[in-house]
Amino acid sequence: MTFSDRLNDRIRATGSRVCLGIDPRPEEHPATHPDRFGGDPAQVAKAVVLYYQAIIEATHDLVACYKPQAAFFEALGIPGLIALAQLLAEIRSRGVPVILDAKRGDLGSTAEAYARAYLADGVFAADALTVNPYLGMDGVRPFVTQAAEAGRGVFVLVRTSNPGGGDFQLMRDASGVALFERVADRLGELAREALGAVGREGGYSPVGAVVGATLPAEEIGALRRRLPHSLLLLPGYGAQGGTADSAAQGFDADGLGAVVNASRSLTVFPDAGPAFAGEARRATQAMRDDLNEALERRG
Amino acid sequence: MTFSDRLNDRIRATGSRVCLGIDPRPEEHPATHPDRFGGDPAQVAKAVVLYYQAIIEATHDLVACYKPQAAFFEALGIPGLIALAQLLAEIRSRGVPVILDAKRGDLGSTAEAYARAYLADGVFAADALTVNPYLGMDGVRPFVTQAAEAGRGVFVLVRTSNPGGGDFQLMRDASGVALFERVADRLGELAREALGAVGREGGYSPVGAVVGATLPAEEIGALRRRLPHSLLLLPGYGAQGGTADSAAQGFDADGLGAVVNASRSLTVFPDAGPAFAGEARRATQAMRDDLNEALERRG
Repeated sequence: MTFSDRLNDRIRATGSRVCLGIDPRPEEHPATHPDRFGGDPAQVAKAVVLYYQAIIEATHDLVACYKPQAAFFEALGIPGLIALAQLLAEIRSRGVPVILDAKRGDLGSTAEAYARAYLADGVFAADALTVNPYLGMDGVRPFVTQAAEAGRGVFVLVRTSNPGGGDFQLMRDASGVALFERVADRLGELAREALGAVGREGGYSPVGAVVGATLPAEEIGALRRRLPHSLLLLPGYGAQGGTADSAAQGFDADGLGAVVNASRSLTVFPDAGPAFAGEARRATQAMRDDLNEALERRG
Repeated sequence: MTFSDRLNDRIRATGSRVCLGIDPRPEEHPATHPDRFGGDPAQVAKAVVLYYQAIIEATHDLVACYKPQAAFFEALGIPGLIALAQLLAEIRSRGVPVILDAKRGDLGSTAEAYARAYLADGVFAADALTVNPYLGMDGVRPFVTQAAEAGRGVFVLVRTSNPGGGDFQLMRDASGVALFERVADRLGELAREALGAVGREGGYSPVGAVVGATLPAEEIGALRRRLPHSLLLLPGYGAQGGTADSAAQGFDADGLGAVVNASRSLTVFPDAGPAFAGEARRATQAMRDDLNEALERRG
C-alpha cells in the first residue's frame, strides 16, 4: 500500500487532518526542564520520551499523523537520537503514519544514504521525510526512488511559512514564474513519472510538498491545483498564525490529500503540570474540529 | 580566535589546501564491508571508526581540514552517529579544523537547535557546518550568530557541483541575476554585518560559501570576487571532475581563504588491503601538490 493511500485512509478513518508536531524544547516544560536533571542529557532525553509518549497516548486517535522535528533531537546528542528512535518506534507500533521533519538534501549517492537512513527499515524509519530542493532534482530523485520502493513518501519544501521564506522562493524569472512555482512544476513532473512507473495516471504520488499554512488562502489553493498528484504538508497553523480557512484550500474536493501541522499549540502547556497530556488532547480535538468546520464552510 | 583565522593559519602552517572528505560507504572496502560482520551495524560502525582513524593518522599533517559527511553516518543508525562523534573527537584532539557536511537548514528556533547541535560544545561539535539557504536568510542567520559567538563558521550552499545543480540555482530574474548570485549577495551582506559586529571591516567572516570545484574557472573566480569576506569550500575535485586550475580561482591573492574537498579519491582503495592508509597519504600529498602547483601557475 502506498503512503498516500495510507494517509488518506487514516484521514477518513479518524476524521482528522491534524499532523501533531513533536518539537522537544525541554526547557519549555517543568517535566523535561534540564535544570531538573542537572543538565544530564541522558535524563533530559528520557524525560522527553516520557512526555511525548504521554501526548501520543492521549492524542493518537485524534491525529492523521505525527511529525517529529529532527533538529531538537540532534541538539540533545546521542541520547536525543535514541529518544527519536524510541518515539518513532512508539508511533509505528500504534500504526499511525509518521513524517520525519529533517529537511535533508544532498547529491546523488549522499541523498541515497539519507534516504536509506529515514525511508528504509531501521531505527530511524519514518513513513515520509521532508526534503530540501536547493541542490536540484538529482538531489530529490534518490529520495523519491527509495520512497516509492518502500511504500513511503517525501515532502519537498516548496513554499515555507517563515517571514524570510520569500527571500529566494519568491524570486521571479523574466516570464514571471517564481522559484517556488518552478520547484512545484518540477515536482509535478516527477510525481507524474512516479505514478507512471506503477501504471497509475491519477491520484497521489510519493512526491509531496511542504506549503506554509500561513500563506494567503488563494496561494495555497493555487499550489493545490498546481500539484494535483502531491500530498501537501501545511505547517504554521496556530502559534505561527495560519488559519483553518487558509489551510482548507490545501485539501482536494474530497477533503483529502493534505495534513496541517501544529506543534507548540498542541504540546506546550507549561502551567498544566501533570495534566499536560489532557490539555494536548483537548487542543488536538479543537484543531481537528476547526479544520473540519473550515472544510465545511469551503464546501 | 575566529574559525577563518584558524583555517588560514592552518593552510600557512601545513602548506596544504586539501579538505579530506570522510564519506564512509562501508561496502567499498573489505575492512569495513558489512558482509564481514554479518551486517551488524555496531561492528560496521566500529570498523568505520578504525578505518578513518588510520587515515587521519596517516594524513593529518597533509590536510587543511577534514569534512565528515553526516548522511553516511546517519545511514548506520545510532552506532553510526556514535562513530561520527568518535571521529569528530579524534580530529578535534589533533587540533585539525573539521567541517561537518550536514547541509542543515530550517526556520528560526529550529535552526537554532541545529546550530546548538553542531556549532556549540558537545558530542557533535564541529568547527564549521554546511547550511542550505532555501528557507531564506532567517534560516541562515541563527547558524551565523551561533558560529560567530563560538569562534566557528558556516558554509552556505551557493553553487553546487552536481549535474542538476543548475535546476534552480541558475534560474535568472528579469535583470539577469541568477538565484545563486542572489544567495551570494545576501551572504555578502550578512558577512559584512558579522564583521562589523566585531569591529572589523576586512578579512573573512564566519559566513563561508560552498562553490563546486567542477565549475568553470571563470565562474569560481567570479564568486571569489563576489564573496570577498567568505571562506570558500570547493567540493568536487578528483572523482567528480574538478581540476586544480579551476579550484585555484577560489583562493585569494595570498593563496588563502578556501579549501578544496576530495573524498573518494583520497580514501577509497579497495585493492590496497591493509596498505589503504599509506595510499591515502600518497593521494593526499599528490592533491596538495597539484593544488599548490596550480596556484603557482595562476600567479
